Amino acid sequence: MNKLCIIGLGLLGGSIGKDCIANHHVKHVIGFGRNKKTLEIAKQLNLVHDISDDYTDIHDADLVIIATPVRQIEKVLNQIKPHLSEKTIITDVGSTKYNVLTKANNVLGKHFKNFIGSHPIAGSEKHGPEAAQESLFHDKNIIVTTHDQNADKDINAIKSFWHLLKGKVIIMDAQQHDEIFSTVSHLPHALAMIFMNMIFQKSNKDQLMSFAASGFRDFTRIAASSPEMWKDIFIENRDACIKDLAEFKKQIELFEKILNDEDQLENFIDSASQLRKNWKY
Amino acid sequence: MNKLCIIGLGLLGGSIGKDCIANHHVKHVIGFGRNKKTLEIAKQLNLVHDISDDYTDIHDADLVIIATPVRQIEKVLNQIKPHLSEKTIITDVGSTKYNVLTKANNVLGKHFKNFIGSHPIAGSEKHGPEAAQESLFHDKNIIVTTHDQNADKDINAIKSFWHLLKGKVIIMDAQQHDEIFSTVSHLPHALAMIFMNMIFQKSNKDQLMSFAASGFRDFTRIAASSPEMWKDIFIENRDACIKDLAEFKKQIELFEKILNDEDQLENFIDSASQLRKNWKY
Repeated sequence: MNKLCIIGLGLLGGSIGKDCIANHHVKHVIGFGRNKKTLEIAKQLNLVHDISDDYTDIHDADLVIIATPVRQIEKVLNQIKPHLSEKTIITDVGSTKYNVLTKANNVLGKHFKNFIGSHPIAGSEKHGPEAAQESLFHDKNIIVTTHDQNADKDINAIKSFWHLLKGKVIIMDAQQHDEIFSTVSHLPHALAMIFMNMIFQKSNKDQLMSFAASGFRDFTRIAASSPEMWKDIFIENRDACIKDLAEFKKQIELFEKILNDEDQLENFIDSASQLRKNWKY
Repeated sequence: MNKLCIIGLGLLGGSIGKDCIANHHVKHVIGFGRNKKTLEIAKQLNLVHDISDDYTDIHDADLVIIATPVRQIEKVLNQIKPHLSEKTIITDVGSTKYNVLTKANNVLGKHFKNFIGSHPIAGSEKHGPEAAQESLFHDKNIIVTTHDQNADKDINAIKSFWHLLKGKVIIMDAQQHDEIFSTVSHLPHALAMIFMNMIFQKSNKDQLMSFAASGFRDFTRIAASSPEMWKDIFIENRDACIKDLAEFKKQIELFEKILNDEDQLENFIDSASQLRKNWKY
């Protein structure tokens, strides 16, 4: 690939650039972003070859990757649209896909056929360009959400790009993606954050935290995730999130009921324990 | 110490024996338990010097440690009571302390003054004698719950014992212990188990699990904990558990409300994120 433009140089955008440069996947990687300091750090860390604040630079890009928080994607699409060429493929790396697809359809016009969604399942509670890792996508699932205007050659180009970064590409419908990830990712993030806030509101929070141990540590790790990124995810995938939270409250009530029944309680814990133990990650 | 009797040779009991033998803290470690196979594995793994099914063997013990699931402690106390000597100190390693103290008071009569509760904050989702580790208690908090009949020399003896295993002893009231650990330990365990069961009940659970990633992995690790042990903890600490679950449901409702308000939502996530990031474990 000759020219890759990455807009947003946090953990994901930065890691893509780092891998592409270190392994010579792309001749020219240009980084864009709102924050001049972030861009300079990214340049220093060799996450990009060059930085720019002028979107005319994307006119001859083979691929534009939008790696901003999800709710900035629409604005970025509006900004880059006048500079897009016929051949440039556009993707994003957001954790919600259906709303982004709808906005891309509204904004991009004739360029919508060149827009294909991506969601690399390669997050971390760490964020910012300093957290970028060269091998972040190795062996990770990359969900690619296509639509019926996409040409096969463009879908194949996106697949090939993620294969360069050693990702495992799975093509999926955007709505199905959002439902699955609401349950397996957004819900546990919400629960961990709600749990931390419950502690935060207590007058003895320092004492409580001083006795927290390894179970607490792992359970709450994802509560330290980027507030800006996760605010956007919850808002964009709000309906699925509310549905899952309602279901979770019902499950709490079920658990409360069986706290009186030794056998049912042991079966409940046993099925949770077995499912978790049998899971191969 | 001359003689230590450990009743129950799972992760905690086994790790105590392993450390005491490997580092020559105790001349003679005898293991007791319901399950003959577990006892034999413990002997093979050098977690104990000898195994026994005869509680008369404890008559000259310096220390008896009850390391069974919490709800078996009462039965064990009844079984060992006839064989206790004046000098033998009795402790347990259960995750709930107030109910155990009450039961010890009811059962032990004149030996109650020799009973002191312990809770090493050194769990793991792994269990059984095979999971025993020599250095499990190093630098870990050990909560010691005393009562007003305890003699200072016995409290000091228990402290010294845990110091041999490099634990950090904290003396605490049993009720206060149960409230603190309901919030920082039992609640996250319950939530992780409830979450796994919610997945378990879905028709597409295999698909969901196939897309689960590192956030899910850490959030749910404690859901794989021992069903027998955790059933007992939830039953023994039921009141605090129900109180915390009710509070958690209210916090979910608060979160649902602010899903409409971008600023409040970002503040909510930010306070969770900050509290977690600032926590030193």
